[in-house]
Amino acid sequence: MDVGELVDRAREGQPRAVARLISLVEDAHPRLREVAAALTPHTGRARVIGLTGPPGVGKSTSTSMLLSALRAEGKRVGVLAIDPSSPFSGGALLGDRIRMTEHATDPGVFIRSMATRGHLGGLSWATPQAVRVLDAAGFDVVLIETVGVGQSEVDVVKLADTTVVLLAPGLGDGIQAAKAGVLEIADVFVVNKADRDGAETVVRDLKQMIAYARREIRGESWRQPIVRTVAARGEGAQDLVKALSEHHDWLVSHGELERRRAERAADEVAAIALRELQARLTDLHGGGHLPAVAKKVVERELDPYAAADELLAALRAGRG
Amino acid sequence: MDVGELVDRAREGQPRAVARLISLVEDAHPRLREVAAALTPHTGRARVIGLTGPPGVGKSTSTSMLLSALRAEGKRVGVLAIDPSSPFSGGALLGDRIRMTEHATDPGVFIRSMATRGHLGGLSWATPQAVRVLDAAGFDVVLIETVGVGQSEVDVVKLADTTVVLLAPGLGDGIQAAKAGVLEIADVFVVNKADRDGAETVVRDLKQMIAYARREIRGESWRQPIVRTVAARGEGAQDLVKALSEHHDWLVSHGELERRRAERAADEVAAIALRELQARLTDLHGGGHLPAVAKKVVERELDPYAAADELLAALRAGRG
Repeated sequence: MDVGELVDRAREGQPRAVARLISLVEDAHPRLREVAAALTPHTGRARVIGLTGPPGVGKSTSTSMLLSALRAEGKRVGVLAIDPSSPFSGGALLGDRIRMTEHATDPGVFIRSMATRGHLGGLSWATPQAVRVLDAAGFDVVLIETVGVGQSEVDVVKLADTTVVLLAPGLGDGIQAAKAGVLEIADVFVVNKADRDGAETVVRDLKQMIAYARREIRGESWRQPIVRTVAARGEGAQDLVKALSEHHDWLVSHGELERRRAERAADEVAAIALRELQARLTDLHGGGHLPAVAKKVVERELDPYAAADELLAALRAGRG
Repeated sequence: MDVGELVDRAREGQPRAVARLISLVEDAHPRLREVAAALTPHTGRARVIGLTGPPGVGKSTSTSMLLSALRAEGKRVGVLAIDPSSPFSGGALLGDRIRMTEHATDPGVFIRSMATRGHLGGLSWATPQAVRVLDAAGFDVVLIETVGVGQSEVDVVKLADTTVVLLAPGLGDGIQAAKAGVLEIADVFVVNKADRDGAETVVRDLKQMIAYARREIRGESWRQPIVRTVAARGEGAQDLVKALSEHHDWLVSHGELERRRAERAADEVAAIALRELQARLTDLHGGGHLPAVAKKVVERELDPYAAADELLAALRAGRG
């Protein structure tokens, strides 16, 4: 494999080269280090937008709608669809994914599902590297789509410049269940299925939450907009694109884009460093040191903190 | 705070002392190390049972049913209900939790919800330490209940000696969606709401999956049983208790209990060690080193791997 040639091909827009580079990320390939070094000079241009929401809200349909609207503006768009790693949810999401096939033949679109189950370091490690591939490959917008079912999925969305939280009427407790959590992560709210009963209740509750949070918590000048959509019919697409554009302008004019990207880079660097440390612990595992101290814990000779001390001492010694 | 006295009181069965110790775990209190050292000699007796399944399967009702059945046998039971950290699911689970209040006045029962959102090291770090508190406090059985919505929740259940996977008819794709994932983690299957239409289809599909997996994958002598329950009416409780008891006997007679506990200890020790390393990286963050290298990444002077190298070198140097 010639890493430089692969990166050149990806930059020329060859989808197979882009796919290959993301596979290297998914496989945690030993030559990722070279890949990152080759990609980095060509990055920093893409807008990164995260979309999340509870199951059933219409995330894939909304992503597809947004994709079409951005394509109509001539933007090249990459999509990373993050599959949660629950053993109970695989099938349903696969079904969602299939609905996006209408974009499959468009050369200005690249869609990739990432299943990172069991990965050392998890999503926080792999996703920013996949974003870097798409950024360097010249995509104007990178959409990260994930169902907000666990902390790791939420963390992924926080990688974005702009985070869109989708809600819809008729999802059980809905807005009541969401509480303060969604306010923390959302830059833009979408109330999808806005033609259904209960949609205006969701909007009204959201407005109250936002007003309350602004008074009590937030001092920022960004006011989280609420966009009504019926994604299945493409309604509200322009409003969403406009809201995203306004948020982008706000990010830039308030120095917030730079701050968020610095934070994202810090998270990524820390995740890579931590993964390296974790790999060293696992090497020790392979070498028998971790099982040996764990045995002492089971036999109550050591408490787990004392065992961790022994492990860290071995790590230090092994490092020379 | 006198750690020794707190541990003594917890061992005498004082619920407030148990609650206080688990709060120390949740708060990642600096004196947890002392706590673990004081608890460890008194551990190793409790049976740890994990319960998981998709949302809507009736987990809390099933946990409550199992609690009653174990109490009828005179067992003292501790419950750790792990709240997934999604911003979209808080309210619904709180509602579930309230249904367990029928046990609230029973001195042989201790129920605790653990919300570990944002914790450094997460559930894999905190849960085994909470289990240790309940184990040392003399609970015969510790139930860990979690909704199986993300990798971290599934990992928590793997901390158990025995993992119960709950399924039910009418949950969308149900068994089709579950696929091989649930077979990997389940020791015992429960088909809850067994009086409803479709329950026998779930049982039949499960039997086929188990038979297939046994032929193709598993060489073990443990045959995953399928227990039918109607938890809301307490039906099937005895069958579930019997299946759990048989699995426990199988674990003991095959040396598997020891193996699982050694693995659990290894995971816990590694999580503590990793958390310590992560804390050191965060100290560097506070000290300005991580932001400085992250800035270089944003400005494309360094790729993130090179930045991680700088960070690790600083960590090594700082350690002396």
